[in-house]
Amino acid sequence: MQLTQALHRAAQLYPERTATVFRERRRTYRESAERVARLAGGLHNLGITKGERVSVLAVNSDHYQEAMLACWWLGAVLNPVNTRWSAAEIAYSLDDCGATLLVVDDQHLPLLPGILAGVERRPMLLHAGMAQTPSGALCMERLLASAEPIADSRSGGDDLAVIMYTGGTTGRPKGVMLSHAALLITVLLRLAEQAPLAKLVGLNVAPMFHIAGLAVAYARVVSGDTNVYIPGFEPVELLETLCREQVNETLLVPTMLQALLVHPRFAEFDLGCLRHILYGASPISSALLDKAMAQLPQADFMQVYGLTENTGLVSFNPPANHGAEARAAGLHRSVGRPVCGQWVKVVDSQGEQVPRRAIGELLVSGPTVMQGYWNKPEETAKVLKDGWLCTGDAAYMDEDGHLFIVDRVKDMIISGGENVYSAEVENVLATHPAVALCAVIGIPHDTWGEAVHAAVVLKPGAEVGAAELQAHCRAQIAGYKCPKSVEFREAMPLSAAGKILKRDLREPHWVGR
Amino acid sequence: MQLTQALHRAAQLYPERTATVFRERRRTYRESAERVARLAGGLHNLGITKGERVSVLAVNSDHYQEAMLACWWLGAVLNPVNTRWSAAEIAYSLDDCGATLLVVDDQHLPLLPGILAGVERRPMLLHAGMAQTPSGALCMERLLASAEPIADSRSGGDDLAVIMYTGGTTGRPKGVMLSHAALLITVLLRLAEQAPLAKLVGLNVAPMFHIAGLAVAYARVVSGDTNVYIPGFEPVELLETLCREQVNETLLVPTMLQALLVHPRFAEFDLGCLRHILYGASPISSALLDKAMAQLPQADFMQVYGLTENTGLVSFNPPANHGAEARAAGLHRSVGRPVCGQWVKVVDSQGEQVPRRAIGELLVSGPTVMQGYWNKPEETAKVLKDGWLCTGDAAYMDEDGHLFIVDRVKDMIISGGENVYSAEVENVLATHPAVALCAVIGIPHDTWGEAVHAAVVLKPGAEVGAAELQAHCRAQIAGYKCPKSVEFREAMPLSAAGKILKRDLREPHWVGR
Repeated sequence: MQLTQALHRAAQLYPERTATVFRERRRTYRESAERVARLAGGLHNLGITKGERVSVLAVNSDHYQEAMLACWWLGAVLNPVNTRWSAAEIAYSLDDCGATLLVVDDQHLPLLPGILAGVERRPMLLHAGMAQTPSGALCMERLLASAEPIADSRSGGDDLAVIMYTGGTTGRPKGVMLSHAALLITVLLRLAEQAPLAKLVGLNVAPMFHIAGLAVAYARVVSGDTNVYIPGFEPVELLETLCREQVNETLLVPTMLQALLVHPRFAEFDLGCLRHILYGASPISSALLDKAMAQLPQADFMQVYGLTENTGLVSFNPPANHGAEARAAGLHRSVGRPVCGQWVKVVDSQGEQVPRRAIGELLVSGPTVMQGYWNKPEETAKVLKDGWLCTGDAAYMDEDGHLFIVDRVKDMIISGGENVYSAEVENVLATHPAVALCAVIGIPHDTWGEAVHAAVVLKPGAEVGAAELQAHCRAQIAGYKCPKSVEFREAMPLSAAGKILKRDLREPHWVGR
Repeated sequence: MQLTQALHRAAQLYPERTATVFRERRRTYRESAERVARLAGGLHNLGITKGERVSVLAVNSDHYQEAMLACWWLGAVLNPVNTRWSAAEIAYSLDDCGATLLVVDDQHLPLLPGILAGVERRPMLLHAGMAQTPSGALCMERLLASAEPIADSRSGGDDLAVIMYTGGTTGRPKGVMLSHAALLITVLLRLAEQAPLAKLVGLNVAPMFHIAGLAVAYARVVSGDTNVYIPGFEPVELLETLCREQVNETLLVPTMLQALLVHPRFAEFDLGCLRHILYGASPISSALLDKAMAQLPQADFMQVYGLTENTGLVSFNPPANHGAEARAAGLHRSVGRPVCGQWVKVVDSQGEQVPRRAIGELLVSGPTVMQGYWNKPEETAKVLKDGWLCTGDAAYMDEDGHLFIVDRVKDMIISGGENVYSAEVENVLATHPAVALCAVIGIPHDTWGEAVHAAVVLKPGAEVGAAELQAHCRAQIAGYKCPKSVEFREAMPLSAAGKILKRDLREPHWVGR
């Protein structure tokens, strides 16, 4: 159960197959394995030993994959840094996990002075890029060129493989500890649900500092296939790369998919190669799925639902649940069935299991649950109870075992004593032809405690008033669930994963409360 | 990593789905889980505790699956007994693993006196069947009816799950120790290679006392699908059951497939439902594959290659390697690529890796390798060296990572200093239109050490002499590989798995040597 076994296997079975593509740069599995063994040797020469943390602050690229695999080869722990964070936040996380080394790419060199000013313990610096290596840092290509390959440490099983920071919605970010076995089993569980693609070419645009991006990229090493990287979500580069590399699988978050489909140049590109579209991080609206399936008729859509704390995979919603018959039954709004190996239960606030179709908090248990939050036993104890991970997601299960996530438990609105799940209201709002994006939150109300409030971004050129949207909702859902107020916005605040940041929408309403 | 988690999951997600079918008897997952929990309770009441061995001597049936899962629920170790063995061999294996309980079905009651006369330590007896329960034995249905369900012991990971006896070609049978994790990972690795079937209905005719039969049956619990059992290979019952239950997946050994295709009633049955045909235990000849693909054009053929000592899965040869183009390249004669997680190497007699395409012994390593042979440290040390399992199979790897098994290392014939691999000669012989079955062995020869000798069963009504078969071979392979003598037989000695027992063919030639 060693994460590097997949690299050894691919290099042995088909050394000349393409492992990574980044713009003009292509590496075979033979080259990739050789570079990883030498990079591990270079890290070893820097004094990095098994169990030490190596942080990577970089956009997606083949170098990211090499750094990731070199960490595991050496037995070190990869800490992918959230590139959307401020220098102060990054400095906090480097100190928190005690990073020995920070790998930084060209794009993030400007953040370095701020980070270094903020840290209590200064890590060594390794620059992976084409720009000039700043003083005090080493150049990765030079390190590689001067190092000898070393033997794989054969780290695996319960050895720590990744520390990935999450949270930030409340309090300080927390370092989720994931083992070799957890990540490898997660990947196998998803592959077991999915039809294999011959000559898989996957494009990685979802950031590697999110578990879904990292796990899906690593999965292609497991199957010995090709990983194409682009540095970030830029629609034209994405479309061009999909065509040029004949990509047949990619993971997108729904907001990326939406932006692609409405892009003025979308129709210029023949995306007939694209067979698998994995999505996650947030549910997909019926309207977006309709559009996507119309514009990409050859693609199978499938959803991965999970959270960093269980290595990103609780359940899988297969292509079959996106077909016409299943959609009529609403199965595309499900996150699918829990995958094998995941114990799940839906509980009330007393921790008692609720009946089928009743909403409660989803708890999960199994071999892919994190070892805990790094150095935070109290925070760990709050979410890991008797081996059960509290997901914070409000969910129910239907008669056939499909899970439906209705909301974050803490996002649930309690208005006049009634529970209102934002997702339900958002699904209704999204079906209005004028609505491009929407988010429903609770805002303070003297009588009801909270009132249902909608933030809406209209489609270009569309015009509609609050009254019409409220009437649209009242025609479909109970009155107490309908927005009592509507705010029209130019854009939504988005997280790095493309999720709408509801806390930013909520904040102005709750100031001083 | 608990084997029973799959049962809990299926019973939670879709309790009313059919778990098992045996002739008229059907059980849902709700019923199956309830019976397993009560059977485990009954075994607990008999005093059976975690780690104790429960032997099952029975034909394939739903009761076999229940006994298997109840063992794991309780934390006991399942010992599936080879039903082809003599009472003396069975008695040896029961004593060897120290079985606390022997589960026996109607068909094997006649063996009981001989077994009990042969054992040093008499196990408790549990009778699973419709016949009268013999005195001194308990009735499984009565035990079930009187017992309360117990909580799952949550055994898993490195806990021992199965002891399966193998060997017998040389010396005493050896008990292969397989853990929960090894079996579960094996199943996931195969499912990751294979396209999932919606509403999978699998038929189990390969015996449960072989690792392939057991692992494939258990895999359907993992995916929460339906297991149909028939007691043994009877072509008409098999064909009738495939149709009646609309079976879409089954594992067959090539000799079974051959017998089905030539059965006079084959054409009466509409087998359009059959989508996946897994095969294993021995290679498939080109002639048989041709015939099978012509008569079952809707089916995907795929091969599982492995051995009991690594839980039955080293490599997987996918449907794509059975298509016209791949067959022209000979890929259907490969056992496919090693699956992820399997370290493999091909070594010479000094243990050094040989170049690509050179033949040597195949060694494997990884999380699915056995813990060892039960109570046989010396035998274990002979095959498990530095974590590598010596398979005893002679193999080579092609440029694309496909493995080809050319023979058992010990089946290799050395004639006049040249290595002759029986499989190569057999493949040529099998293409002769008169040949139904053939086996090539080495027999003693004063000049060459060994001489190549063929045993042949002709097709009904076919007539051909040794000279014509020898000429057929000489037209295709080197002279030193051609049989120097041919023996015509009415039938071949077959193992329980349908393999030709070459030791039985060899024996008369080697008596006194």
